[in-house]
Amino acid sequence: MLSVKTPEEVLALIEEEFAPLPGRMETVPLTAAIGRVLAEDVTAGEYVPAFDRSTVDGYAVRARDTFGCSDAIPAILSLTGQVLMGQGADKPLAPDCCIAVPTGGAVPEGADSVVMIEYTEDYGDGSIGIAKAAAPGQNMIFKGDDVYPGKPVLEKGRLLTDRDIGALAAIGCVQVPVVKKLRVGILSTGDELVPPERQPGPGQIRDVNGPMLQALFAAAGAEAEYYGILKDEEKQLYAAVKAAENSCDLVVISGGSSVGVKDATCRIIESLGTLLLHGIAMKPGKPTILGKCGGKPVVGLPGHPVAAYFVTKLFVLPLLHRLMGQKVQTFTVTARLSESLSANHGRAQYQCVRLRRTGDYLTAYPIRSKSGLITTLAGADGFFCIGRDCEGLPEGAEIQVITQ
Amino acid sequence: MLSVKTPEEVLALIEEEFAPLPGRMETVPLTAAIGRVLAEDVTAGEYVPAFDRSTVDGYAVRARDTFGCSDAIPAILSLTGQVLMGQGADKPLAPDCCIAVPTGGAVPEGADSVVMIEYTEDYGDGSIGIAKAAAPGQNMIFKGDDVYPGKPVLEKGRLLTDRDIGALAAIGCVQVPVVKKLRVGILSTGDELVPPERQPGPGQIRDVNGPMLQALFAAAGAEAEYYGILKDEEKQLYAAVKAAENSCDLVVISGGSSVGVKDATCRIIESLGTLLLHGIAMKPGKPTILGKCGGKPVVGLPGHPVAAYFVTKLFVLPLLHRLMGQKVQTFTVTARLSESLSANHGRAQYQCVRLRRTGDYLTAYPIRSKSGLITTLAGADGFFCIGRDCEGLPEGAEIQVITQ
Repeated sequence: MLSVKTPEEVLALIEEEFAPLPGRMETVPLTAAIGRVLAEDVTAGEYVPAFDRSTVDGYAVRARDTFGCSDAIPAILSLTGQVLMGQGADKPLAPDCCIAVPTGGAVPEGADSVVMIEYTEDYGDGSIGIAKAAAPGQNMIFKGDDVYPGKPVLEKGRLLTDRDIGALAAIGCVQVPVVKKLRVGILSTGDELVPPERQPGPGQIRDVNGPMLQALFAAAGAEAEYYGILKDEEKQLYAAVKAAENSCDLVVISGGSSVGVKDATCRIIESLGTLLLHGIAMKPGKPTILGKCGGKPVVGLPGHPVAAYFVTKLFVLPLLHRLMGQKVQTFTVTARLSESLSANHGRAQYQCVRLRRTGDYLTAYPIRSKSGLITTLAGADGFFCIGRDCEGLPEGAEIQVITQ
Repeated sequence: MLSVKTPEEVLALIEEEFAPLPGRMETVPLTAAIGRVLAEDVTAGEYVPAFDRSTVDGYAVRARDTFGCSDAIPAILSLTGQVLMGQGADKPLAPDCCIAVPTGGAVPEGADSVVMIEYTEDYGDGSIGIAKAAAPGQNMIFKGDDVYPGKPVLEKGRLLTDRDIGALAAIGCVQVPVVKKLRVGILSTGDELVPPERQPGPGQIRDVNGPMLQALFAAAGAEAEYYGILKDEEKQLYAAVKAAENSCDLVVISGGSSVGVKDATCRIIESLGTLLLHGIAMKPGKPTILGKCGGKPVVGLPGHPVAAYFVTKLFVLPLLHRLMGQKVQTFTVTARLSESLSANHGRAQYQCVRLRRTGDYLTAYPIRSKSGLITTLAGADGFFCIGRDCEGLPEGAEIQVITQ
C-alpha cells in the first residue's frame, strides 16, 4: 500500500518519474505562437538594427567638428546630403560636413553622432549652424545594439508572451519552433452523473469536471479529448482507459465519489502499468491517484469538483508542463485575510478567495461554504494555501494568492 | 492644440468618451467559453444539488434515534433499504430505522443526518449498530446548499475563468451568453518597415508592431485584422484608416517614427472625426494619439515597439475592455528592486523586469538598454511604473509588478 504524500513529495515524484517527451517540435507562424511553448533556444542570426540609426530628427556629424561650439559661436558645417527613411546612407560623411537624417534613419559612415534639429540652424546657403556640441555616440543606436548574430534571445521551454512575439518579429523568426500540443484524455466516471446539458433526474447531478477539465487543459495549451461519462463499471472503465492511454499523452480520470471507483482505478492502473501515488496530504484533494501506464501518466482525480480543480492546478498542470518541457514561474499576489481561518493540522489546505483593493493593499475574502461546493469557485479571484504545519491564520495575516 | 495628459487622465477620458457597444451578445458552447466575457448576469435556474446528499459512505438516520449511543452502548436501528448512486431514495426513513447511502447519494426523506460507516456495525440480521451519535445535518449537503433558483452565480462583464466553467456546468448553463469578439484593425506605417519575413535592405527594419499587436489583441479576445504596412503617404493612409474604421470596432495605427506620420494621423482623425488626445506624460509612449471617428476609437501608437507595447497594455486594452463591457481587476506582484533606478520627474516611467525568487521574496532585475530596444521585452516577466512624482528608487525598494 502506498502512503499518502505531501504536495512537495508529489511534485518531486512527477519530476522523477516523467521527462519531457522527445520529438514533439512543430513550427507555427509568428502570430499563432503566443501561448505556445518554445521548443528550441532562439538566438539571433543577424544584427538588429542592421545599420547605425538616428534616434532623433537632426544632422549626422563627426562629434569633433562640433566641439567648442555654442549658441553664440555655432559650428558651421556643409550640408552634403539627406538620408531618407527606409534607404541606406548613400555616401559617407566628409570632415566639416553634415547630412540630414530623420528619426530611425541610417547614420552615414564617417558620422559618430547626431545633433537634434532643435540645436541647429539652416542658413539656406548649403551650410548648417550647430549650436550645441555633440558627444560621440550621441542620439544614435549602433548596428547590433539590440542583437547580433549568436546572441541568445529566448530560452527553450518558455511560454511565449505578447512581448516575446515582438522580439521574434524583430529578428525575423517568423516560423517559430514550438512544442506540439499534447493530447489529454478526459474521462468522467460516476453513476450519478449526467451531461451538463441534460436535466438531472432523482439522485443525479450534472458532470462538472468534464467541461471544467476540458477548459483547464485547453487553456494550458493542450488538446483535450473528452471520452464522456462512464458508469462505475470496471470492465467499461478499463477499456476506456486503455483506449485513452493509446491515443493520448496524459489520461485524467475524474472519479465518481464512490469508494468502488477509486479501487477500480487503482486496479486498472496496476494491470496496465504501475501505481505511483495513492493519496495527497491536502484538503480538498486527498483521494488522488497517479500511475504510469505504457510510460504515460494516468491520473485519478477526486470526483468532487473543487478537489479536482485544486489537484489539476497544483499537480496535473505541472505534470503537463513537465511533459512539454515548459518552464513555469508562478507569481503570487500578496493580500491580507479579511477574517481568521482555522486549518487542519497535517494537511495543506487550499482556499478560494475574492480580492478587493482596500487603500494600499489587497484584502482576501475567503469564499466559505459547507463542503467546498462548486459555486465557491465561481467568481473567485484566486486561491491560497494554508501550510500543513499551520493550525490557522488570524485576521489580517499576509497571504500569497495564486490568481492565474 | 491638445495638452499632454497624465495616464490617469487618459483612462478617465476613455471612460468618458466610450461606452460598451450595445447588441454584441452571442452564445457559445460551455467548453468554448473560457477567456470570453460574460454578456449577461448568470443566475441559477434550479437547485444544486437538487436533492439532499450524503457527503460520506454510511447510514442515513434520524439524529434523535442515535442520541446517547456510544461504543459501549450502540443504538440499534433496522436497515430498511439502500440508496444507489444516481437514483432517488425510493422510500422515506421510518423512526428507529436506517438506510445505507453512498458518498454523493440521495438522503431519504425523514433522515436528517448520515453516520459514517466507520462508526457502525452491520450485525447481519437486518440491524445496524450505531456507535456515535449524529448531530442533525451532519455529513449532509441539503438541496439548494450550492445554489437555488434566482441565486446570482456570475456577473456580466466577467472574463470567464476555468473555475467559472465548472460553476456554469453545475447549473446547466451550456450555451453561455458572451460578448462577440470585437474587430481591431491594425495598420503599420513607416517607409523603413518591411514584413518580418523579408530580409531588410539598407536603412530598413522589420515590422515588429504588426505581429506583436496581432498577438496582443488576439490574446485579449479580439479579432485582429492586419491591414499591412503602409508608406508614409497621407492619401494612402487616409484611405486605409477609413476602410479599417468602416469594418472594425477599434483602429490602431502604429506610427512610423517620423514626425510627418504623426501629423498625418492627427489630420486624418480630424477629417474623419475628433482628436481627443495628443501626448501622454509617460516614458516611453509620449507620442500617442487618440481620436473618435464615426463614434469609433482610432489610436495612433508610437512606432517604437517598446513604447507601442506599454501604451497598448496600459490604455488600448482597457479601451477594448470598455467597449466589451469587461470588468478588469489587475493584480500586481510585490518584488524588491535589485538596483537603484533614476526616473524622469514629471512623467510616469515604465520599466521591464525579470523576476527571480530569493528566499522569501522576489527580486526584480530591470532589463536595461540604451534606448528601450525590442529585446528588452523578450524574456521579461513583467513591468512596473515609477510614478511621475518620483525621481528614482533605491536598491531594495518594494515595487508592484504587472506580470500579465
